[in-house]
Amino acid sequence: MNKPLILITNDDGVNAKGIRSLIAGVLPLGEVVVVAPDSPRSAQSSALTVATPIRVKKTEEDNNLTIYQCTGTPADCVKLALNQILNRTPDVIVSGINHGTNASISVLYSGTMGAALEGCVAGIPSIGFSLCSFDPRANFAEAMRYANLITEKVLQNGLPRQICLNVNIPHTTQVKGLKVCRQSEGYWSEEFLKRQDPTGRNYYWLTGEFINAEPMNDDTDQWALEQGYVSVVPVKVDMTAYELMSDLNSWFAEK
Amino acid sequence: MNKPLILITNDDGVNAKGIRSLIAGVLPLGEVVVVAPDSPRSAQSSALTVATPIRVKKTEEDNNLTIYQCTGTPADCVKLALNQILNRTPDVIVSGINHGTNASISVLYSGTMGAALEGCVAGIPSIGFSLCSFDPRANFAEAMRYANLITEKVLQNGLPRQICLNVNIPHTTQVKGLKVCRQSEGYWSEEFLKRQDPTGRNYYWLTGEFINAEPMNDDTDQWALEQGYVSVVPVKVDMTAYELMSDLNSWFAEK
Repeated sequence: MNKPLILITNDDGVNAKGIRSLIAGVLPLGEVVVVAPDSPRSAQSSALTVATPIRVKKTEEDNNLTIYQCTGTPADCVKLALNQILNRTPDVIVSGINHGTNASISVLYSGTMGAALEGCVAGIPSIGFSLCSFDPRANFAEAMRYANLITEKVLQNGLPRQICLNVNIPHTTQVKGLKVCRQSEGYWSEEFLKRQDPTGRNYYWLTGEFINAEPMNDDTDQWALEQGYVSVVPVKVDMTAYELMSDLNSWFAEK
Repeated sequence: MNKPLILITNDDGVNAKGIRSLIAGVLPLGEVVVVAPDSPRSAQSSALTVATPIRVKKTEEDNNLTIYQCTGTPADCVKLALNQILNRTPDVIVSGINHGTNASISVLYSGTMGAALEGCVAGIPSIGFSLCSFDPRANFAEAMRYANLITEKVLQNGLPRQICLNVNIPHTTQVKGLKVCRQSEGYWSEEFLKRQDPTGRNYYWLTGEFINAEPMNDDTDQWALEQGYVSVVPVKVDMTAYELMSDLNSWFAEK
């Protein structure tokens, strides 16, 4: 019987410590193929490369691990892997381990989660992993352990159609455990540095601070992380706000 | 009393026929400020520019209409407008009119909808409009009429927190009316051209065909558009799949 096939990608690029940690964390579970961006693609969301062609290069190959790098976004990597690179359908797609949180609304902007969503649109159980530290040399030991555990559970149980997992790991050596959560409501405040370049022209650089809009609620991913737990949020492709449909119907009823 | 302030952006760039049609469609409703990309940014989803600075330039100004172009993504445009450009909070944000459908899963990839989601994360009623034609010279007459109607309804009624609208307009002069719908399940098939460049190296170019995974269901946006109706889908920022939380809790119960 074939070992499970595990497709790995990320948004920090193929040389990031986070993806190397993810490879090490899940390699005991099966055969691994990596298709990842050749350089950082943070905050790429589900963006696709449509105006230019994409290049792919195989950089490593042995029995259980093959690595490709490409010039596309994380979502491109998943599409390319499924359509052009792999010769069988992967049993699971894992993305990350991202350097930095993707909890709360960061799920919207995250290239790590863009790749996981792409996998689940294609009908494959998919998980995004993120460590709550932007340090390129962060300690991924706990994150690797949880990546292994959760990937194994998903290989055993599968995931329902059109749902993937957003897993965030606090940056501590004393993780308290794991909580299944909902996505916290939040936003970013004071978001740009405004400066002048050497010729006196203005430029803007994105920055800012994340604000948790519901800090008192203990069922959110943001709360779990602040308390030292790994957060697991099931994320769905269907973004329909069913609860607003009857109101909208009444707005337009006269038409 | 101030006229309503309407912020407009898009992902086809400030010179596209679609955004010029949207400006004309909603200008009777208030004061318009446009902050839009200086060139096409299709399929940019909620991507943000984090690795480079952003430039902004004012290109037009009269009493009721001011236009800025910038080097960022559609979501960047909304952030910049709210944080740096506008001196009061807009009453509504409208994005588009996109050249091409953003129904079904295209909501994930769409820069038009990335901008609308950004607006609603910031607490402002927001709408993305798309015309189901990629023709740069498409006929926007019906789309303009519906953009005016729906924007006026949203100015009157507001929208709930963290919910925006995804409006798609069929490319026909015989629109049958408007339907409130859910997002259809779908995916793209056969997604890359593989070719060789003049030096013999392979490259890949994204292409493919949209497949509606539920063509028989008459409550979806895709169905409404195929029948000649305008589709209105309420879209929520909270992507949590609540229905999977108890199963996930039982997976991890032994921990």
